[in-house]
Amino acid sequence: MPAKKKRGAQTLVFDQPPVITSWASIAGPKEGQGPWGQDFDWSMEDYLFGEESWEKAENKMLRETVKKALNKRNFDEADTEILMAGDLLNQLVSSNYAARELGIPFLGLYGACSTMAESLLLAAILVDGEFFERVIAAACSHHYTAERQFRFPTEQGIQKTPSSQWTATAAGAVLLEPVGTGPRITAVSIGKVIDMDQKDVSDMGSAMAPAAAHTIKTHFSDLNRPSDYYDLIVTGDLGKVGMAITQELFIKDGLQPEPNYSDCGVLLYDDFQEVYAGGSGCGCSACFLCGPLLKKMSAGEINKLLFVATGALMSPITSFQGESIPAIAHAVAIEN
Amino acid sequence: MPAKKKRGAQTLVFDQPPVITSWASIAGPKEGQGPWGQDFDWSMEDYLFGEESWEKAENKMLRETVKKALNKRNFDEADTEILMAGDLLNQLVSSNYAARELGIPFLGLYGACSTMAESLLLAAILVDGEFFERVIAAACSHHYTAERQFRFPTEQGIQKTPSSQWTATAAGAVLLEPVGTGPRITAVSIGKVIDMDQKDVSDMGSAMAPAAAHTIKTHFSDLNRPSDYYDLIVTGDLGKVGMAITQELFIKDGLQPEPNYSDCGVLLYDDFQEVYAGGSGCGCSACFLCGPLLKKMSAGEINKLLFVATGALMSPITSFQGESIPAIAHAVAIEN
Repeated sequence: MPAKKKRGAQTLVFDQPPVITSWASIAGPKEGQGPWGQDFDWSMEDYLFGEESWEKAENKMLRETVKKALNKRNFDEADTEILMAGDLLNQLVSSNYAARELGIPFLGLYGACSTMAESLLLAAILVDGEFFERVIAAACSHHYTAERQFRFPTEQGIQKTPSSQWTATAAGAVLLEPVGTGPRITAVSIGKVIDMDQKDVSDMGSAMAPAAAHTIKTHFSDLNRPSDYYDLIVTGDLGKVGMAITQELFIKDGLQPEPNYSDCGVLLYDDFQEVYAGGSGCGCSACFLCGPLLKKMSAGEINKLLFVATGALMSPITSFQGESIPAIAHAVAIEN
Repeated sequence: MPAKKKRGAQTLVFDQPPVITSWASIAGPKEGQGPWGQDFDWSMEDYLFGEESWEKAENKMLRETVKKALNKRNFDEADTEILMAGDLLNQLVSSNYAARELGIPFLGLYGACSTMAESLLLAAILVDGEFFERVIAAACSHHYTAERQFRFPTEQGIQKTPSSQWTATAAGAVLLEPVGTGPRITAVSIGKVIDMDQKDVSDMGSAMAPAAAHTIKTHFSDLNRPSDYYDLIVTGDLGKVGMAITQELFIKDGLQPEPNYSDCGVLLYDDFQEVYAGGSGCGCSACFLCGPLLKKMSAGEINKLLFVATGALMSPITSFQGESIPAIAHAVAIEN
């Protein structure tokens, strides 16, 4: 059997584009006070969300977001065939413990901040390939669990550089089905790991921008699409620094999608919210997709969206050992 | 479209069972001296494998194993469409950095020691669904990187309990294609997270045994297969303690696959090698599959194998916070 759904180097086109029949998002206190606060299903009042640790709060955020997406469609966990999810914590514990409590068969994914695109693209493959009929794709992050794991004890109040980004406290989940009403996933491009030898962990936007540009360029060339095909191309969480580099790379690559290009990390917060170069964390693009973006698609304000979540794939250990930051980006085409 | 490839609660049956056309494995110094040392493609002379850190050695192990599996089939990285891989390190860095150097489009997976089954089952879905034609599934672990990440500084020489297991230094990779010569993946069962409230991180076999028994029972009931269908059912790395519990659970569940049941963690080492209850780590089942087991399938000594890799999904943080150990197991049916 030839791979009849593959186009070009890295892109798949679906015969029976899976439908996003439901979605839900949750935002942390800061994210809820940002410009899109009304577009999330919940905004948390505090960072503990009724739990005794930030880690348990993050687990609850993912679990409740999945339940909300199912409930909107009048399904519950028992109706759901498989959960594809990931987060930023070591050993993926937010997702693992959420999957334990949800009781849905589970596959854990790690793509750093690219995880929402990874879970979406694999979920679309499972539905288009006639393997499953009700698949949940989800991702989450929590500012304070990430801060103490990747950076410094939060109590220490270490000063940040202007290029650093604010890990979003947020989660998003979508339900994919083979038929129904909603936007459809029509094509996906799976990224390669790109590393331009950037070693500054306070500037992940610069490390991720070349991966985003590479995947977007490949997506257009694999599908032979004009660069104005989409109403909006949105990267995951490059922030202001990474977004500016990506725009330069677009021009160098002969793509000129501006002004229909933006970045979830730039959009999620208001300028006065002190998030340095912007938002990050896999919850950033997950909540922005499962809040403002899918709402706009429902309303017909966006009809063709290219969602490109980006991830920086280093760890504190590799940085201590002098390694540069490898990055990845996956693209998911969502169309009405 | 109905999910026509799904059977029962958690099982997929493939229309065009993907073929394992090539495979490779690497074993650490201790594993190479065990009873199956001759069946791996390499045995490492030391734990650094020519690198300057154990982490870099683990990355090289995965990279070289993937290259070896491709080379045996006269392919190289440029011929390969996608790499599905994972490991035990925080942020999956062995796989991420190996993917950077291989340059193959990449999806990172985390299933703790169940990762080889997770990568295999997703790779089989990608090939059976006609998405890709040359997919690599791989996993690795390294004793000393895991020891210092999950337990204690290795220099400290902390005494182990008899129920603890020895993280294997090993990697395995398979190449899946839609047509060709080799054993085929005919069906897979995707596990649920099972947690029986076991909190002792020095006894992961007991934590994982119920997940293994649950997936195996579900696999047989979903496919309505007799419990003597397979020549061998092999769990990932339950070790002696977990294997004994699994055998008891089989009897309770009305399955009696003995004597055609064993465990990679029990098989990998000789008794005198001082590995306590047995081997563990995602390299344990990965190298055992991609060494002794697939060799025996090639020779016709095993014709029907059920490979059930098991993972304990806690982290040091969740254990410090008093959480119990959730576990998962995925089953992959491989037949000549």
